[in-house]
Order: sequence, then structure tokens, then C-alpha cells
Amino acid sequence: MFRDLKWSDTEKKAARKAFQTALSREFEAVTRMTKERAAKIAQPDDLWDLENFLTESRKRIDHEYDYRYSVLPEVFARLILNGRLSEDEIKGLQQDKLELIGRYLEIARSR
Amino acid sequence: MFRDLKWSDTEKKAARKAFQTALSREFEAVTRMTKERAAKIAQPDDLWDLENFLTESRKRIDHEYDYRYSVLPEVFARLILNGRLSEDEIKGLQQDKLELIGRYLEIARSR
Repeated sequence: MFRDLKWSDTEKKAARKAFQTALSREFEAVTRMTKERAAKIAQPDDLWDLENFLTESRKRIDHEYDYRYSVLPEVFARLILNGRLSEDEIKGLQQDKLELIGRYLEIARSR
Repeated sequence: MFRDLKWSDTEKKAARKAFQTALSREFEAVTRMTKERAAKIAQPDDLWDLENFLTESRKRIDHEYDYRYSVLPEVFARLILNGRLSEDEIKGLQQDKLELIGRYLEIARSR
């Protein structure tokens, strides 16, 4: 179903912009946490905890930031749920995608 | 040959102390470099460079700090070569080990 959604060029631009905004916020958050953790390193285990945090962050970002149009509405819904995007920031999308995103949000919020 | 070396209890204590001294210096160095790198993170790639630095450091430390008595003279020679130990700090070892370590150092320094 979702694969049948048509994306206009204007809409693709709006989607790309929202996606990049969220990704920048993600990197800012990981960078801030990395600096905080590094500043507090007091023993060897703290080094490997930081290594693990970075590895998990990299894998999570690879997984969550998937720009295929077939999954993009779900990606945006997740980014709204975890606070990386506001609903205002995807207003450049057309009604069919906004409705789909809205449905994802409803399901997630009702759980 | 090296496996036939006998280690007295006093000597084992001296070896353990020197080994721990070097390992502490190693962790201090990696911690200092981690804090410096973290403080300078300016773009996403810097995060993954730091992750890679930590992974490589962990693997290198696992490999270099091998406390089996069969390899310990070679381990001490390497720690002296890379500046983690001074020759003074292994003086608690007996002559047979010191000679072996001395031979490793000679070979390495003549290359």
C-alpha cells in the first residue's frame, strides 16, 4: 500500500528537509552525551561503556534514519514520537502521507 | 625454552606490580586521548572515529597486556620499548628474565 504513495518534487524537498533537521538533532544529542560521558571517565570500564554507547548509537541511527519513500511515513511518525521532529515540521507533506503518519501516531499513543 | 623459566613468589609479585603500573599508564593515556578527542567533536564522522579509536585501543590492550608467564619477558620488553615501563621498574625480576628481556630489547633496537 505505502509503496503506491506518490511523492511530488516539492513534497520530496519538504521530506528531505525534515529528515535532515531530525538527523542533525540526533547527531547533536549523541555528541552532547558523548562529551558528557567522556568528561566523566574515571575508570577503564567507563571507556568501554562509551565505546558501547557509540556503537549502539551508530547502529540505532542507521536503522531509524531510513530515507526510502516506502517507509518514510513510519520513520517520520517515530521521529515525532521520540521528539526529534514536531508535527509542524512535516506540514509540507501532502494529505495522504499526513494521514498515514497520523494513524501511526494514534496507534503508538494508544498503546 | 621460555616456558621452562621458574618464577619465585617474590618475583611474581614484582612482575605483577610492574605489569599493573604499565596497565594503569596505558589506561591513563587512552583516557586522556579520549577526553581530548571528545572535546573536539564537531561533525558526525568524529563520533565514529572516536568509536573506532576506542575499539582499537581495547583490542590492542587485550593483546599487549598478556600476563602468561610464558610470554611475560616479551611483554615487558614491548612495554619498555613503547615507554610504558622503565628498565628500573623490572629490577625485581631475576637475572634469567632480565637477560631474556635485554635480548629482546637488543633485537628490537637493532632493527
